[in-house]
Amino acid sequence: MLPGLQIDHDSSVPVYRQIADGFRGAALDGRLRPGHRLPPTRDLARQLGVNRQTVVAAYEHLAAEGWVHSQTGKGTFLVDPRTVESRSPEPGSERDTADGWLTAFSQAVDGPNVGGLLSVYQTATAIEGISFGASYPARELMPVEAFGRAMAATLRDAGREVLSYGPTAGHAPLRELLAATMRESGSRIDPENVLVTNGAQQAIELVFNTFLERGDAVIIEEPTYTGALSVLGSIGARAVAVPVDEQGMRPDLLAMALERHRPRLMYVQPTFHNPTTAVMGEDRRRQLLALATRNRCIVVEDDWASGLRLEGDELPTLHALDGGSHVVYLSTFSKRLLPGLRVGWVAAPTSVTERLIRLKQIRDCGTTPLLQAALQSFLREGGLDAHLQRVLPVNRERRDCMLQALTRHLPADAAWTRPEGGLFVWVTLPRNFDGQDLLLAARRRGVHYSNGTLFHSNTDGNHTLRLTYSTATPSQIESGVETLGALIHERWPSRPDSGDPKPVETMPIF
Amino acid sequence: MLPGLQIDHDSSVPVYRQIADGFRGAALDGRLRPGHRLPPTRDLARQLGVNRQTVVAAYEHLAAEGWVHSQTGKGTFLVDPRTVESRSPEPGSERDTADGWLTAFSQAVDGPNVGGLLSVYQTATAIEGISFGASYPARELMPVEAFGRAMAATLRDAGREVLSYGPTAGHAPLRELLAATMRESGSRIDPENVLVTNGAQQAIELVFNTFLERGDAVIIEEPTYTGALSVLGSIGARAVAVPVDEQGMRPDLLAMALERHRPRLMYVQPTFHNPTTAVMGEDRRRQLLALATRNRCIVVEDDWASGLRLEGDELPTLHALDGGSHVVYLSTFSKRLLPGLRVGWVAAPTSVTERLIRLKQIRDCGTTPLLQAALQSFLREGGLDAHLQRVLPVNRERRDCMLQALTRHLPADAAWTRPEGGLFVWVTLPRNFDGQDLLLAARRRGVHYSNGTLFHSNTDGNHTLRLTYSTATPSQIESGVETLGALIHERWPSRPDSGDPKPVETMPIF
Repeated sequence: MLPGLQIDHDSSVPVYRQIADGFRGAALDGRLRPGHRLPPTRDLARQLGVNRQTVVAAYEHLAAEGWVHSQTGKGTFLVDPRTVESRSPEPGSERDTADGWLTAFSQAVDGPNVGGLLSVYQTATAIEGISFGASYPARELMPVEAFGRAMAATLRDAGREVLSYGPTAGHAPLRELLAATMRESGSRIDPENVLVTNGAQQAIELVFNTFLERGDAVIIEEPTYTGALSVLGSIGARAVAVPVDEQGMRPDLLAMALERHRPRLMYVQPTFHNPTTAVMGEDRRRQLLALATRNRCIVVEDDWASGLRLEGDELPTLHALDGGSHVVYLSTFSKRLLPGLRVGWVAAPTSVTERLIRLKQIRDCGTTPLLQAALQSFLREGGLDAHLQRVLPVNRERRDCMLQALTRHLPADAAWTRPEGGLFVWVTLPRNFDGQDLLLAARRRGVHYSNGTLFHSNTDGNHTLRLTYSTATPSQIESGVETLGALIHERWPSRPDSGDPKPVETMPIF
Repeated sequence: MLPGLQIDHDSSVPVYRQIADGFRGAALDGRLRPGHRLPPTRDLARQLGVNRQTVVAAYEHLAAEGWVHSQTGKGTFLVDPRTVESRSPEPGSERDTADGWLTAFSQAVDGPNVGGLLSVYQTATAIEGISFGASYPARELMPVEAFGRAMAATLRDAGREVLSYGPTAGHAPLRELLAATMRESGSRIDPENVLVTNGAQQAIELVFNTFLERGDAVIIEEPTYTGALSVLGSIGARAVAVPVDEQGMRPDLLAMALERHRPRLMYVQPTFHNPTTAVMGEDRRRQLLALATRNRCIVVEDDWASGLRLEGDELPTLHALDGGSHVVYLSTFSKRLLPGLRVGWVAAPTSVTERLIRLKQIRDCGTTPLLQAALQSFLREGGLDAHLQRVLPVNRERRDCMLQALTRHLPADAAWTRPEGGLFVWVTLPRNFDGQDLLLAARRRGVHYSNGTLFHSNTDGNHTLRLTYSTATPSQIESGVETLGALIHERWPSRPDSGDPKPVETMPIF
C-alpha cells in the first residue's frame, strides 16, 4: 500500500481521484519508482475501506493519463513520470503558463511511446554499414524500371485526372483490384469496403482513432509492432498486453483480459508476427475470433507480410474466417513491393468504412491518385507476381544464411526463430543480458538492428533482438552476425537467466 | 435561466457538472432548442447563488463535449444534440453496450463538423455540369507533360532512393528549396524547420493535434476553411469564432476573445481568406501579432493561396513579420500547381517541428519521397513560374468574367467581393434568403458551388455562396451565373434583411 495515502470522505474531490492523486504524487516526488507494481485492487480496497470499483476507477484514471500500464497476468505498473509530460487540462484550469507557450504539447505528440516509431524508423532508414534494421525488400531488387513504365503510361493516359483531387476513399480501379485480391484469399469484401491509405501505418492510426477515446482499453500482443504502440500512446488508450507464445497471443490470457478490461478492440498480427515471426495456427485463429465475438471486441488484423511466405501453406486470414463482419483488415505494399509508394489499405464493415473515410478526409484529403493509378497499372500488368518471383528466392537464401550464421557465431544457449516468411529473425538472449549495451557496441562496429524493447509497451525485451535478413547480402549477413556474435560472447552473463517469459501460474488481479 | 435547474450542494457531483448536466438534459429532451442562447454567466451565477467561475467551468465543459459553441460578441449557443453523438467515457463506465459494437465511434470521427470537409470535397470533385465548387486551377492548364518529364528524370536518376522509405520530415532538397522560397519572402527559416506534408490539410491536422487537447479554446475567423473546423471538431476543441470584416478578423473582438478564452492558438488566413477573399492589411497583421504575443497565443497562418495574386502588391506574411518565433506557417502546392500531388508543408519553431515530425511519423511514416523528389526537380527547372505565367492571366480573365456576369444577372441588392487573388468570389444575399434551397435547385440545373454554411462553426451563412471562377470556362461562367441569377431572382425575399452581420454594440459576456 502507498504510505501516507489518506482518504477524506468529506472532500469534494471524488475518492477515486484522491487515490489516483496519491499514486501520482508518489511517482512525481520519487517515493515510488518507475516499474513499481500497484497493489491488487482487492487488497487496496480492503485496506482503504473503499469499494473495489473505486480502486479500479482510480487505476483506470491513472492509465488514461499515462501514469501506469497494465499487463495481463502481471499487474499494473508505474511508468517513468518523465514520460508523462502532458495531460488534459481540468475545466477552468490554465495550462497556458509562462513557460508553456511553445512547450506544452498534447497527448497526441507527448504521450507514452509516441516517439517509439521514430526511433525504429531512424534505425531502419540508416543505410551506412550493415543494416539488419530496415524491414523491407532488398533495394537492388526493386522493380524501378517496370514501375517507371507504369508511371509513364499513367501520366500519358490519365495525367489530368490523376493529378487532380481524387476520391477520398481511393482510386476506384485500385479499390476494385484490392477487393478482388482479398476475395481470392477467401474474404467476403466489396470495393466499397476498401479505403486506400498512406501505408499500413496510416491504416492503423485511422482505425485506432476511429474507435478509441483516451482511457479505452485495447488488447495488444506483447511484444508487438512499435507503430501500433505509438498510436495508442498518442490517443492515451490503455494497452492491455497479452503475452505471446510460438503461436502468437495466448488464448487463456486473452480470455482473462477480455473479461476484465472490456476492451474496445484488439490488435493482432496472426501471420509472421512483428517482431517474433510467430504464425497463429488455424485453430487458434478460430479460438481468437470466438473469444472476440463473445466479448464484442473488434479485431484489427495487420497482415503487413502477406505475399512474403517462404515455405509452408498459406493460412486463412482472420478476415476470411470471420466473413468480414467484425474484423478490420489492413495491409501494405511497402514490404512486398516498394516502401516509397506509401500505399496501403484497410478493409472494414460499411459503418466503419464510412467513418474511416471521414477521418481520412480531414487527415489529408486522400492518398495521391497519381501513385494509386500507377500502382494499379503495375499490378494489372502482373508486376507484383514477377517481383515476388525474383525476391522470394533471395529472401529464402538470406534467411538461411542468417540462420546458419547465428548457429555459427552465437552462444549455444541463445535462442532464435526459424521464420516461415516475413523479413527478419527474432533472437532471445538470457533475461539478464543488457541488449542496450549490445546495440550501442554493435552500432560502433557499423552493425545496425532493432532492440526488442522497442516492441514492448513497457521496458521489457532488452534481451531480445530483431534482425532483418532481407536487405543485406549474404556476405554482409555473415560478417554482421559474426560481429554480433563476438560482442554477445564478450557480454554473456556468468549466470544466465532463462530467456523465456515466466509462466503465469496464478489468477492475476490485473 | 433553465427551468427546473436545482443545485444540490451536498451532492458528490461537482456543481459545475450539475449545471452542465442540466443544460444537456434540457437539450436532449427538447426543453431547450438547438440555437438557444445560454444566459450570461454573470446572470446565471447570481440566480443560482454560485461563483461565476463555476458557471464558466460548466459552459466550458459543455463546449468541450460539443454541446454548445460560443461566438465572441454574441454568446454561447446550444447545438443540435443529434450532432453530439460521442462522448468520452467516464472512468468505470461501459460504452461497450449491446448496440454499440460497431456503432460507437470516437470524437475523432463523430465530433461536430467532422464530416463538413467531406461535403465540400465531394462538391469540389464533382465534374459533371458547371462547377463553381472545386477550388483549384483549370484542368486544361495543368502542366502534365512538364511534370511527367520531371518524374521520369527522378525515377531514372534516383529511382531506388525515392522508392525507399525517406526521411520523415521530407526529402532534403525539397525542404531546402521551400525554406529558400520562404526566405525570399522575408521569413527567417532553416530547412530543419520545414516539414513536408500531404497537402495543407495534413499540415493543419498535424499542427492542431500537436497543440490541442479536448476542450482547449481555439480562435478562428468566422467564416473560415471547413477543413480547419472539421479537425477542431474531431479533437473536441472549442472554436471561438471572431467575426471578420473586409480586412479579416476584427481586432477589437479578437482582443476580447483572447482575454476571455485564453486560447491555445488562433487559425488565420490573412491573404485571400477562404471563403470571404478578404486580405488583411499590414497594419492589421501587426496588430494581430501584437495581440497574440501579449496573450501568448500561437498563430497558425494558412497561406494556401500564395502565388495566386492577380493584382496589387504582395503583403508580408505573418511568419515574416513575426520572425518565425511564434507563427506556425503552412501552405500547399494543391492550388497553385497540382492537387493530385498531395504535397504541402509547414514551417515552425524547432520545438514545434520536433513534435510535428513525431506525429507525422505515426500518421504515415512520411510523404512519398518519389513525388517530393519529382516536385523538387520540377520546381528547380522553373516549372512553377512557367505554370503561373500561363495560369494567372486565365484566372484574371475568369474572375473578371464572373464579376461581369454577377453584375448582369444578380439582383442589384446582392453583394459580392472583388478578389485580388485566389480562386473564388464570395456572394452575400439577404440574411433571410434560403441558400440551401438555392443550392439544391442549382444542382438540379447542373450548377455546383459551395453553400456558405459549410464555412461556419454554427448554422450561420445560409445566405452566402462561394463561387470558384478558376475551373470553368468563360462561357460556362456566363451560363452558370445566368442560371444562378434566375434562381436567385425567383427566390428573392419580398422584405430582404441586410446581409451584413449585425454590429456588436455591447460588451458581450461570452
